[in-house]
Amino acid sequence: MELGAYSFGDTQRNADDSLRSTSEAITNLFEAIKLADRSGLDYFGVGEHHTTSMPASSPGAIIAAAAAATEQIKLGSAASIISTDDPVRIYQQFATADIISGGGRVEITAGRGSSVETFPLFGYDLEEYDELYANKLDLLMTINDSQAPEVTWSGNKRPALNDLAVVPRPAQGKLPIWLATGGNASSSARAGQLGLPVSYAIIGGAPHRFAPLADLYRKAGAASGHAPETLKVSVAAMGLIAPTKKEALERFYPGWYNLNLEMGRLRGWPAPDKRAYDIQAEAPGAYYVGDPDEVAERIVHLHGYLGHMRHFLQMDVGGIPQEQLLESIELLATEVKPRVQRLLEKK
Amino acid sequence: MELGAYSFGDTQRNADDSLRSTSEAITNLFEAIKLADRSGLDYFGVGEHHTTSMPASSPGAIIAAAAAATEQIKLGSAASIISTDDPVRIYQQFATADIISGGGRVEITAGRGSSVETFPLFGYDLEEYDELYANKLDLLMTINDSQAPEVTWSGNKRPALNDLAVVPRPAQGKLPIWLATGGNASSSARAGQLGLPVSYAIIGGAPHRFAPLADLYRKAGAASGHAPETLKVSVAAMGLIAPTKKEALERFYPGWYNLNLEMGRLRGWPAPDKRAYDIQAEAPGAYYVGDPDEVAERIVHLHGYLGHMRHFLQMDVGGIPQEQLLESIELLATEVKPRVQRLLEKK
Repeated sequence: MELGAYSFGDTQRNADDSLRSTSEAITNLFEAIKLADRSGLDYFGVGEHHTTSMPASSPGAIIAAAAAATEQIKLGSAASIISTDDPVRIYQQFATADIISGGGRVEITAGRGSSVETFPLFGYDLEEYDELYANKLDLLMTINDSQAPEVTWSGNKRPALNDLAVVPRPAQGKLPIWLATGGNASSSARAGQLGLPVSYAIIGGAPHRFAPLADLYRKAGAASGHAPETLKVSVAAMGLIAPTKKEALERFYPGWYNLNLEMGRLRGWPAPDKRAYDIQAEAPGAYYVGDPDEVAERIVHLHGYLGHMRHFLQMDVGGIPQEQLLESIELLATEVKPRVQRLLEKK
Repeated sequence: MELGAYSFGDTQRNADDSLRSTSEAITNLFEAIKLADRSGLDYFGVGEHHTTSMPASSPGAIIAAAAAATEQIKLGSAASIISTDDPVRIYQQFATADIISGGGRVEITAGRGSSVETFPLFGYDLEEYDELYANKLDLLMTINDSQAPEVTWSGNKRPALNDLAVVPRPAQGKLPIWLATGGNASSSARAGQLGLPVSYAIIGGAPHRFAPLADLYRKAGAASGHAPETLKVSVAAMGLIAPTKKEALERFYPGWYNLNLEMGRLRGWPAPDKRAYDIQAEAPGAYYVGDPDEVAERIVHLHGYLGHMRHFLQMDVGGIPQEQLLESIELLATEVKPRVQRLLEKK
């Protein structure tokens, strides 16, 4: 089982809750990726957001830099919002990053956009949400599946390519492309039909409720003739590890509160509720917040339902202090990971 | 005077002149940038091309990686084809790279596209060549000049921004933005009027013929009220340094031949002519090919005409062997640069 982290580069906060600079947020994110690599974590994902509180707007640039500054960790977007970007550009950036990584460490995760701020920013129409995604995913896969640099493709949401080179090509010929979903059934079926590995973002509710979706995914994949080993499941969830469960709960709460306050203001929700936090932070809730023993047990418990091969955590929600983020990354790599392996071997 | 190099990541060739992989080309380019940094070169520019013989399609990704892997060198695009890209994306990538560089080492050079392969690749109309450039340059400058992350802009070649965040912001608030031109008069006047530093690509003819353009640029800048110290000129030219002039001429020729053969096939030119090469490679021709003494003297000679503050060379034209490229970079940094400084001090 691969363990990892992901981040949107959350901006840290001053004592009065005002935001520090977006520049500091990117510096901290980059430091976290380098520590994850040194600690032995398997994967780091960089999300795409475009706000002052989450300024990781260019996963391609951050991952290219991380490819140069790391040795062993796998790097991916989590996710690239392909609906409102150009798959040719995304492919070029990630292929470049893959080459710089030494080859074979860089992946693309293709998303539709859970937050929708990219639509006005890049001049797209939200009414075309589904069509943009389907069309651009098709182009991304066409480029990746092409045997030669020259690609021919046509669709209705992006100008056609008529035997035009998309370069550079990744060192190993193809990039792993994951399909990201918040968990609707049609996305699971689509991922299976396309034979793409699927990444479930589980940000609320009991994670084991995703078991029927993972079943649907594997059945759709098998029905479309894809080999079982190509049908991989990963889980992206929120969480934080600290030496004790009490510390983990206390450290994760202020950032969770900030995030929900901000989202609530944008979307008209009521003020964040501490009871909701407590429910999500205890098994079988959505958050993996605890000491290494508990987090390891909960990941293995979920594995019994989903059979997932990668579990990665968003730890810096709402801009927690950098030293707490770094400690959590180190504990995940050095304490949680061996526990997960032992527990899985016992099964 | 700053000395530097630039590259489109030219793909090396096998003995039978067939191209090696684009992946190897990017690996070699990245190695060259790291050596340029270690050797003490002042600047490395990465151009944007989209062909199997020049696969550096994502200057933003390469420069972000280079920012992570270098200590002192300034890094820029040379150039970003802004006409057929989105200035918001370009700004986000280069601001991210600048932050990862430690702040203050990353620049954007905005170009229209000397080769036009990006127009069909990204679905733009060549008839809008001038209008796309003007419009997108205006957006790029508006983002850079904004005091806050939130930007408001409208134009006719890109959807409007209405108080939308463009993040992250570079560590130092703004990025240097250069205007690239092959040397037409209206571009020089425009750069001056906008108060942008100008980068002349001198790829043929006698370089000192650019003196009237540099004068026009400075006069237009002064007439628009820009301070003389903001009106900087740089020169991008082809060239190669070797221990002896004979070696330099012999090493640079095969790549030059390959490049001109390929361009000739695309554009209907006759076969490359060795006499044309010899004329360009001797003073006052366009190519800076020689031993350290001669190249230093020729750069300082041009400085008498242009007063430029940066001179950087494209050395890997047509895919010369990597060891010859690396030797040229090292000679430029360690042999040419001190000679140029001594000659300028004597003046």
